Amino acid sequence: MTNFISLADVTNIDALIQSGLESKANPFAHQSLGKNKTIGLIFFNSSLRTRLSTQKAAQNLGMNVITMNVGQDSWGLEMEEGVLMNADKAEHVREAAAVIGRYCDVIGIRAFAELQDRDKDYREQVMHQFAKYAGVPIVNLESATRHPLQSLADCITIEEAKTVKKPKVVLTWLPHFKSLPQAVANSFCEWMNVRAAAGEVEFVVTHPEGYELAPEFVGNAHVTHDQDEAFAGADFIYGKNWSSYTHYGQVLTQDPSWAVTMNDLRLTNNGRFMHCLPVRRNLKVSDEVLDSPYSLVVEQAANREWSAQAVLKEILSNI
Amino acid sequence: MTNFISLADVTNIDALIQSGLESKANPFAHQSLGKNKTIGLIFFNSSLRTRLSTQKAAQNLGMNVITMNVGQDSWGLEMEEGVLMNADKAEHVREAAAVIGRYCDVIGIRAFAELQDRDKDYREQVMHQFAKYAGVPIVNLESATRHPLQSLADCITIEEAKTVKKPKVVLTWLPHFKSLPQAVANSFCEWMNVRAAAGEVEFVVTHPEGYELAPEFVGNAHVTHDQDEAFAGADFIYGKNWSSYTHYGQVLTQDPSWAVTMNDLRLTNNGRFMHCLPVRRNLKVSDEVLDSPYSLVVEQAANREWSAQAVLKEILSNI
Amino acid sequence: MTNFISLADVTNIDALIQSGLESKANPFAHQSLGKNKTIGLIFFNSSLRTRLSTQKAAQNLGMNVITMNVGQDSWGLEMEEGVLMNADKAEHVREAAAVIGRYCDVIGIRAFAELQDRDKDYREQVMHQFAKYAGVPIVNLESATRHPLQSLADCITIEEAKTVKKPKVVLTWLPHFKSLPQAVANSFCEWMNVRAAAGEVEFVVTHPEGYELAPEFVGNAHVTHDQDEAFAGADFIYGKNWSSYTHYGQVLTQDPSWAVTMNDLRLTNNGRFMHCLPVRRNLKVSDEVLDSPYSLVVEQAANREWSAQAVLKEILSNI
Repeated sequence: MTNFISLADVTNIDALIQSGLESKANPFAHQSLGKNKTIGLIFFNSSLRTRLSTQKAAQNLGMNVITMNVGQDSWGLEMEEGVLMNADKAEHVREAAAVIGRYCDVIGIRAFAELQDRDKDYREQVMHQFAKYAGVPIVNLESATRHPLQSLADCITIEEAKTVKKPKVVLTWLPHFKSLPQAVANSFCEWMNVRAAAGEVEFVVTHPEGYELAPEFVGNAHVTHDQDEAFAGADFIYGKNWSSYTHYGQVLTQDPSWAVTMNDLRLTNNGRFMHCLPVRRNLKVSDEVLDSPYSLVVEQAANREWSAQAVLKEILSNI
Repeated sequence: MTNFISLADVTNIDALIQSGLESKANPFAHQSLGKNKTIGLIFFNSSLRTRLSTQKAAQNLGMNVITMNVGQDSWGLEMEEGVLMNADKAEHVREAAAVIGRYCDVIGIRAFAELQDRDKDYREQVMHQFAKYAGVPIVNLESATRHPLQSLADCITIEEAKTVKKPKVVLTWLPHFKSLPQAVANSFCEWMNVRAAAGEVEFVVTHPEGYELAPEFVGNAHVTHDQDEAFAGADFIYGKNWSSYTHYGQVLTQDPSWAVTMNDLRLTNNGRFMHCLPVRRNLKVSDEVLDSPYSLVVEQAANREWSAQAVLKEILSNI
Repeated sequence: MTNFISLADVTNIDALIQSGLESKANPFAHQSLGKNKTIGLIFFNSSLRTRLSTQKAAQNLGMNVITMNVGQDSWGLEMEEGVLMNADKAEHVREAAAVIGRYCDVIGIRAFAELQDRDKDYREQVMHQFAKYAGVPIVNLESATRHPLQSLADCITIEEAKTVKKPKVVLTWLPHFKSLPQAVANSFCEWMNVRAAAGEVEFVVTHPEGYELAPEFVGNAHVTHDQDEAFAGADFIYGKNWSSYTHYGQVLTQDPSWAVTMNDLRLTNNGRFMHCLPVRRNLKVSDEVLDSPYSLVVEQAANREWSAQAVLKEILSNI
């Protein structure tokens, strides 16, 4: 593994999950690996879990960490090629990426979807431009269409918590008044479809009409608009809001019946509730669910440290 | 000591002061204590001394430090229980604290008073919610009503600079056009009252009418509205502005005669001037005082490193 | 060398260039030098290269790094003496510098020209006040009139890339619609004039009328308004925009013929193109130049790490 931009960069999911679990059991076993190595964490957007867990994972491995907020610590970056730079962007990614790549051994980048222009978002320009020009490994800290460090943490969490050999995992849309990216849902589909193909899980997606995810992500997952049907016998309920892909970036409904409550959980097979956080309580999920023993959200967030450590460990091993 | 939220968490002030002085003499003697331990410094408000000194103290002890500005690096946190989160706060402290507590071994938090609702400020919701949900030790980096790391540094400074066994210490209100929290004054009273009860100091508070501090903080201190009377024979003059507690958050007067000048200092027993900084020169204190050998303000700020180190050392010893 | 505020602090440029090249060859050879030493990086303005490269250089030397954005992480600082501080600045540099100097062994400061008041900018108040009150070495991370870490990196870059014993180095003004400081151009002149006096380079400056640099910086350099004449036979073309010094801070022309293209480069002796970055592509320099093998801009930025390391190494050796 050189870059970790999407699942396509991963040769062996199982090995990565096991590596994460080993790091969790023994966080400081590989500190010589990162000695005199520096990761630069570049944030175009806000972050809590990703900022802290990636920094922590890197430090567990003995790395130095440099964090930078683009547009706050520095200035905006131009991503388009061949333009006359006479507007607000003071620097081109060609220079910025190449220079950061000279100071850092690995670069992590967070750059959300803007939700204005679907083609632009789905081109994943920021990640690809950095990967093209940085000259060092790139780690996706959530991009316009994917959040693979989250998905790997999700796999680790399911692996830890499953009580049956092949659990039924349901991704359900949750209501929200804001327009949110599809990245977490896309990534979760991408990873779960591979896990399903390997016979590790049964994967179902449920959402209101109009919230269909992009075909390349939803793949062969079973999709239903009937949440109750989806929840029946489920072992894991993965909640997430996303805005419409078809009517790009739009909020088509805020139907509160899609929020997850204990009544919904009772349809499941003692199903555990998962969410990548942050979660708006009582809007998307009830207090009762989040504060119940069925909730895995904190453990899932804690596993972000181990997914990041597994990825960085493999990248460092290949430098 | 598990948390360091207020003086109530401290079992032995003298031991903590001595520990601070030992760290000052030998800063790097306990670097193995913090090895592979991480402190997360969470700022809801701006900081200079606290940010730098706490980070420095943690590094002296061999810790890793992760700093985060809430609302700038990340997003606002909901502190109230049971609410429908459909407004501007994207995450609840229940999740945020629990998750940060999974990445960090100790959490430091700065969250100032909002000075709008006295009951809310004095409930110290942010500190208490973090302490309740983080699952790891919490260090108060200045809360709505207290600044105990400052008070401990003040005790260390007085211990170093005193020339008599039981110095007379005066807290005086200073004029300011802005509405400032009572936290530093409250904390100083809280700590000085305990020092006075132990026979270590004589403690006097002076301020204009209407600036009475909360009874639970001012305690049995001698309070006078006559600054000259308070200053007579004083060994330490501790200056600070605060807004009214009674008329909560209001600026009732900006009377410049309350500013400290050399004329005021001449009433004292070669009294040393203290202030937690930042200080507005010539508004609250004259240049002449701050630039005189009577000023302790820089030494006092320098001692913030050693108060933080004493606290972190004790917390690390108990992890 | 105690401070590194301007070239006047440097006793031996050659030794510093060699030290930079040695660090580049062997970055981690002197990690014990910085053990338990802390550098505070104080930014009054945005930064990318300086922020990352100085942090990296300090970590290469084993130092701890604390970064602070003034006015974002903390608050504005008053630089004038004797004022009544009743406006927006909450703290005086006398206290701030002295206190930071108690926490940090070295302080780096970035504070750009405001381009409103030439005398004020050229007094270099921020650097001089910090140097006066901090009590520890100060490193200039770009001040109102100078950027010496950049100039040292430029010298290293020319030393590495030169193909003749005494290369012809040309500083050319580039068009820009914004009002930019003269700092990089000033510093480059200051350093190149000393290199020219030592017989190391031939130095020429070219710019439109009205863009004359301050006499104390341009010194005895050959100045021409004919860019073609300047470029003839040049080995290095150093491009930079600056606003007028005479009509202080003004943009007098945006004449696009001053931008550097391959046609201009063809006038040179296979001249290499240099720029401190960020650079606005196709406004100041064409894509064709920047993406050609003649461009040194990324290597030049990479050398910022080694110029910072050379400076910090010498400062640490003298602490």
